[in-house]
Amino acid sequence: MEALPANNLFFFMLTIKSRSHEYTVESFESLKAALAATDRSRAHYLIDKAIGCHYGHVIADYSEASRTVVVDATEENKSFENLAPVFIGLLQLGLKRDGVLVVIGGGVLQDIGCFIASVLSRGLCWELIPTTLLAQADSCIGSKSSINIGAYKNQIGTFYPPHRVLLTPEVLTTLPPDEIRSGLGEVIKLQLIKSQADFDELMADLSRFDQSNQASILTKWIARSMAVKRPYIEADEYDRGARNLLNYGHTFGHAYESATQYGIPHGIAVILGILTATFLSARLGLIPESHYLELKQKLSPWHRPYGAILQNADRSVIFEAIKHDKKNIGEAVNCILTRGPGSMEKMRVDFTGQIQPAINQFIAKEMNA
Amino acid sequence: MEALPANNLFFFMLTIKSRSHEYTVESFESLKAALAATDRSRAHYLIDKAIGCHYGHVIADYSEASRTVVVDATEENKSFENLAPVFIGLLQLGLKRDGVLVVIGGGVLQDIGCFIASVLSRGLCWELIPTTLLAQADSCIGSKSSINIGAYKNQIGTFYPPHRVLLTPEVLTTLPPDEIRSGLGEVIKLQLIKSQADFDELMADLSRFDQSNQASILTKWIARSMAVKRPYIEADEYDRGARNLLNYGHTFGHAYESATQYGIPHGIAVILGILTATFLSARLGLIPESHYLELKQKLSPWHRPYGAILQNADRSVIFEAIKHDKKNIGEAVNCILTRGPGSMEKMRVDFTGQIQPAINQFIAKEMNA
Repeated sequence: MEALPANNLFFFMLTIKSRSHEYTVESFESLKAALAATDRSRAHYLIDKAIGCHYGHVIADYSEASRTVVVDATEENKSFENLAPVFIGLLQLGLKRDGVLVVIGGGVLQDIGCFIASVLSRGLCWELIPTTLLAQADSCIGSKSSINIGAYKNQIGTFYPPHRVLLTPEVLTTLPPDEIRSGLGEVIKLQLIKSQADFDELMADLSRFDQSNQASILTKWIARSMAVKRPYIEADEYDRGARNLLNYGHTFGHAYESATQYGIPHGIAVILGILTATFLSARLGLIPESHYLELKQKLSPWHRPYGAILQNADRSVIFEAIKHDKKNIGEAVNCILTRGPGSMEKMRVDFTGQIQPAINQFIAKEMNA
Repeated sequence: MEALPANNLFFFMLTIKSRSHEYTVESFESLKAALAATDRSRAHYLIDKAIGCHYGHVIADYSEASRTVVVDATEENKSFENLAPVFIGLLQLGLKRDGVLVVIGGGVLQDIGCFIASVLSRGLCWELIPTTLLAQADSCIGSKSSINIGAYKNQIGTFYPPHRVLLTPEVLTTLPPDEIRSGLGEVIKLQLIKSQADFDELMADLSRFDQSNQASILTKWIARSMAVKRPYIEADEYDRGARNLLNYGHTFGHAYESATQYGIPHGIAVILGILTATFLSARLGLIPESHYLELKQKLSPWHRPYGAILQNADRSVIFEAIKHDKKNIGEAVNCILTRGPGSMEKMRVDFTGQIQPAINQFIAKEMNA
């Protein structure tokens, strides 16, 4: 993959090791080609309702309606309580342990599909065609599922990667701009984790990002994102050590999503979370303030106007969400902070003395743009 | 464990390897001693309502009511739909990823506890105090969970053994006789899988089984059952090959349970399933009929009067259950058949031509006792 041919950006393949099985990521020039490559004779399909708008005809040609369950990709449907009809629907259509569940959609469908595949018959074969930039560049590998229950967000889940990931840049062409920016949030995060040089190269590409070069720039950075993520998930699939660093921006980002009733797209909330973590890192003396100010300026086009929206969010909901983040143990909050690109660190930070005042200042002053 | 001291039957310890973690099985002389050994400072408790009748005071002394959820161990509660309140109850009481779920109960509690522990925070630490003979001798190791959904039985589940199993013979003293016989069903199955000599030794012990020697005989055969099961689950935890043999008697047994609305205790249905598989093996010429007749006579005290109850069961429900067993792929049925004790074999058997007439004859004539 490192030897990605410059003239043929759409084709690459990589293999990823997992505790449960090894799997491949392959790219295809079209959704039709990806669908044709799935294990169609054994397939049942779980499809995001929204993907039908643009690609219904292609999907219909390459899947069986009698073996398809369509799901509306909402946060409410990503709940334990609402999964029962999806499980039952697939069982009624005859999905058994020798079947393959083909999941077509973005992050919510991936969460639902991953969870179902991991517990149906104690683990089914599943294939994933991710249809958002965020899913293609980030979540499709190292697959975790996150399911809500009652008032508790993402408390239920499994580690169970697809047996095969089929990527195609075609589906990115019809995404709305905020979906692209949301995916770029995770791409930015991964390159900041990698190094200053990689982050600078990404920013240079994004500064000339337009309709004409979108496909090639995105495809390049999807591959580069996977190259950053792969060693972390292979070394620490269950997220108990090194992989924690990939949560950079997430403790704060999740809280911002939660306090805005998921009004901020996930990856954009991650950008705001990265800025918060960097602001906090500067306050704690880990980096010079200039580093934060530079990052703030560079990331500004990629989160506007959501930063301003944060100012209207209920601050107490943000604080509660951080305190109850499932990654926290005890009173202090585990944060991924930064000593600069390529140098992230997990630290326990005092909630009342440090985090609360930093967030108050960040939202009130820094996002006042 | 092989060197179990004859005068100190209640104490042994073994270690079992699993894909997700290694775990120990330890025995304690009383429930109080087992409870005292759990990780009490981090524990939340999931307790079978029935266990409270006999041991409520001990459990109350060694657990925190404010961290306890009590579950009625019914087949209905072992369903995906009815798990949501249990999950939410535990979350409301503050169970987080650094907690330990201590599960006290029989098979149903183990299924519920295992499933919850495997998906809460993507895998919690859990400890199991099995309170039935069946759970102690068989299901507590190699832990799989089986959860019902809608009209589908055991279609959802996970492989996720406890981090520690704490056994005590004390809880066996208050079990009703059918619960003891049900546990013996799996003990008998395991010794038939092992060898003729082991099975004969078990039968000799059971022929002198009474109130005075029950504890020592059961403790001996719990240890011996684990010794048979351990190599299968260590070599094939996910039940894709060799471990299939442990399903001896289960395809038919599950169907009998299902057709009697779980009116036959599981292990007793397994005994009836073993007899069916042996009857079928004789019809297919794998063993002489005399072998079946001998087994039928020896096992008779351990299933009566449930064999006769089978005659009133709806035969079509039995047949449907076998055809829809999740282990089957295609038209033929995967059965574990026998060439005699110590020699089990997985075979594909024609449903209409072989299985259906064998079951008809078995139930109508052989169980007419």
